[in-house]
Amino acid sequence: METTVGAIFEQGQRSIKVPVPVYIRASASVVGTKEGEGPFGDCFDVVGVDDKFGCETWEEAESTLQKEALQLAIGKSGIDSGGIRYLFAGDLLGQSIASSFGVGSFQIPLVGMYGACSTCGLSISMATVMIAGGMAEHAACVTSSHFASAEKEFRFPLGYGNQRPLSATWTVTGSGAFILSSTRSDHDRAMVAGLTIGKIVDFGLKDSMNMGACMAPAACDTIYHNLMDFGRQPSDYDKIITGDLGSVGQKALWDMMREKGMDISKVHMDCGMEIYDQSQDAHAGGSGCGCSAVVLSAYILKQLEEGKWKRVLFVPTGALLSKTSFNEGQSIPGIAHAVELVGLKQ
Amino acid sequence: METTVGAIFEQGQRSIKVPVPVYIRASASVVGTKEGEGPFGDCFDVVGVDDKFGCETWEEAESTLQKEALQLAIGKSGIDSGGIRYLFAGDLLGQSIASSFGVGSFQIPLVGMYGACSTCGLSISMATVMIAGGMAEHAACVTSSHFASAEKEFRFPLGYGNQRPLSATWTVTGSGAFILSSTRSDHDRAMVAGLTIGKIVDFGLKDSMNMGACMAPAACDTIYHNLMDFGRQPSDYDKIITGDLGSVGQKALWDMMREKGMDISKVHMDCGMEIYDQSQDAHAGGSGCGCSAVVLSAYILKQLEEGKWKRVLFVPTGALLSKTSFNEGQSIPGIAHAVELVGLKQ
Repeated sequence: METTVGAIFEQGQRSIKVPVPVYIRASASVVGTKEGEGPFGDCFDVVGVDDKFGCETWEEAESTLQKEALQLAIGKSGIDSGGIRYLFAGDLLGQSIASSFGVGSFQIPLVGMYGACSTCGLSISMATVMIAGGMAEHAACVTSSHFASAEKEFRFPLGYGNQRPLSATWTVTGSGAFILSSTRSDHDRAMVAGLTIGKIVDFGLKDSMNMGACMAPAACDTIYHNLMDFGRQPSDYDKIITGDLGSVGQKALWDMMREKGMDISKVHMDCGMEIYDQSQDAHAGGSGCGCSAVVLSAYILKQLEEGKWKRVLFVPTGALLSKTSFNEGQSIPGIAHAVELVGLKQ
Repeated sequence: METTVGAIFEQGQRSIKVPVPVYIRASASVVGTKEGEGPFGDCFDVVGVDDKFGCETWEEAESTLQKEALQLAIGKSGIDSGGIRYLFAGDLLGQSIASSFGVGSFQIPLVGMYGACSTCGLSISMATVMIAGGMAEHAACVTSSHFASAEKEFRFPLGYGNQRPLSATWTVTGSGAFILSSTRSDHDRAMVAGLTIGKIVDFGLKDSMNMGACMAPAACDTIYHNLMDFGRQPSDYDKIITGDLGSVGQKALWDMMREKGMDISKVHMDCGMEIYDQSQDAHAGGSGCGCSAVVLSAYILKQLEEGKWKRVLFVPTGALLSKTSFNEGQSIPGIAHAVELVGLKQ
């Protein structure tokens, strides 16, 4: 009855096989002191010496992270900032103020995104759609989080010194920026080949100190549908990389995937579990929009560039709560958006 | 050096001429009691009898607005909800919880958007890009605001009974939903023909009780660039319709456009100035994501459908503040996204 469009799948499916090549031409990562002391410390472009980044407030500091990451990524891309047609940006703060006050000075038309900690995946997805659809040649994406602004937004004043259970994650102070393009250059980092936009998945969990468990069902749903839509096995990816499930969420994800008859344990990696080491007292791992974004820029794209990995599924995960919804006794729904990245090394 | 893509303009421009027809197949509006008593009272699909819509909290009430508007719009479209590939949604509350708790039950893959009160324009823009790019056949958009949840989020507890200056606007309780499609039906309401994505424009204003003045520069910037990019005069549109500038913002917009040598006063309309009448004590007018969304669904699309207008520029306007940024003494940057709508009546 209705015509089927080339790039998409059948009804009931939700993935997009990107119809023309979209390249990640450049990226940048800017992080705080704790992240700089972690396992990826040497891989980040900038490690701040002071988590306030010279600003008066934590929110301004987070805006500065975005500004520096985006500036760096644009510089590396070799594209004049006037040539970047659209910017896709978002963060965790109420009304996305880290972005609003971070990226205004670039004067690039702005598409504001919200997917909690999955925003990096969502923004890369929509920039890819814009470029693949022929409506932009170059687009930028930037996302951020900051430990101190997130604690203030979602939990307790830092001075209160609240205790954190072992299931809690530590919000990453960092911002990752990416420049996507339809035209090939001699220094592209990877290609975006497929997208799977996630649904809201709500198992009714309410513990904001165990967000890994809240987000794992959404990660499972998105990964499962990606594999089904593309007719793949977990082993078809060198890595399936979630954003910030942490150690508790990882176990839940593996169990749920096994219930669907799929074992992802051999290829699974979680950015939150890798960004800090055991000695850093981050408990279940790192989290926040910045977590997956800086690990993608500093580590994942490097592996693809060097040919160590050929094809990965990058799946940032988000917990869709606010302090208001939490205080009103609501559950914490999850969402996850998957981006298939392919290395360009022959 | 780089190839130019058909649908887009030269460097420095920011508009998109939608390359293939995208139709607004159906829409719906659900509003509160005050909106029901206003000039468009008879045009809305549903007017609630109780602004809590049977819920326990204002946030749940706003989620219910979204749920009902989306359900109605899907029903009118004649498309099975499984056939709607993606949903673009957002609202004003911190971490967009009205959307997260409003649309989860539809189980449609979700693209979360944030553009403050411009979100309706942004979501229709991105759904259009997705469809025009061949990556979806049908997509849905929904946005909302609620007077009481917005007062709680941005200003004072209702019980405090704060006074409002005459420049203040009244947040509309309402939600508008839209179903967009690449395929023609016999009941399409209008066609999306052009898009102009806005930039952040910050004149340094800080008065959250005068958001019209904060947003007018952004509206001016977007309208000006739309006219320049498409080589048009204001009179090429039957109406240029801003979202929620109110009477103070309208005057500022007209003045700024005149400074650019363009008089839009003959074709300009502001949704916020039309949704309430003088007797309703709304001061400068209505505002909120819901304001432009419900006026678009209930009134603007009706004029296009009936052939009274042939071509309009719909320009929802957003003020990118949060209570944190306001309390920290930051300015209130504005943004506006423009959607060109064309009637289908011969």
